[in-house]
Amino acid sequence: AQIALERGYEERREFDARYRMLLATTRDAVVFVAGSDGRIKDLNAPAADLLGAGRDELVGAAFAQEFKDRRRGEFVDNLLSLAMSDSLDDLVVQARRTRNKLRIQPSMFRAAGERILICRLDADAEGQAVDDRLA
Amino acid sequence: AQIALERGYEERREFDARYRMLLATTRDAVVFVAGSDGRIKDLNAPAADLLGAGRDELVGAAFAQEFKDRRRGEFVDNLLSLAMSDSLDDLVVQARRTRNKLRIQPSMFRAAGERILICRLDADAEGQAVDDRLA
Repeated sequence: AQIALERGYEERREFDARYRMLLATTRDAVVFVAGSDGRIKDLNAPAADLLGAGRDELVGAAFAQEFKDRRRGEFVDNLLSLAMSDSLDDLVVQARRTRNKLRIQPSMFRAAGERILICRLDADAEGQAVDDRLA
Repeated sequence: AQIALERGYEERREFDARYRMLLATTRDAVVFVAGSDGRIKDLNAPAADLLGAGRDELVGAAFAQEFKDRRRGEFVDNLLSLAMSDSLDDLVVQARRTRNKLRIQPSMFRAAGERILICRLDADAEGQAVDDRLA
């Protein structure tokens, strides 16, 4: 058991390290959200920039709270059903802090018995065009 | 030890799962390369597309072999020194199978006592402009 434990530890550290390097390397804005309580588990710098706060402030915060007019339970349900549907639709939301219109593309996976959402965020070009016309 | 082992297993599975979902989600082309032998440890679909082969074929292959006129030991040394330097230079190479000119931006990390390179690949716009002029 000791040998298995140590090998497990090394393997875990390798995936942990690969995960962290990949999250730091990708230019796509990515947020991990717990399906259970809708809180942000992790996100990268491009995602923090789009939301308009530091990573430290955002990890542990309710994801729904970062957007205008979104209630936590309902918002997570929307993301989960969008992730589980075959449709290529995404969700357009407005970031509370930056007022950026963002498109969210969620996918769902299970890890350690928990549902986790991985959400890619993109600035919404159409949303910005609308803002330009109103300005 | 049994409880620690199980917790380790669950945690490892969570990072493993997060890693795999992130690699599948990012649109940046990313390749992980072992510093010891220069072989591809993992890569995502956008990277496989730029190199012109399937993921299955590329995992375990020598990364240098995917480019024109690159020798394995020297190529890995170049990537490691580029990763360890503060310069923002990247390496321009030509993919052997697709003849795409690609820019490689490597970063280095250590995991389980091993040096691992994470390389972001981008199609080189200047390289393509040169090709267009020659055509």
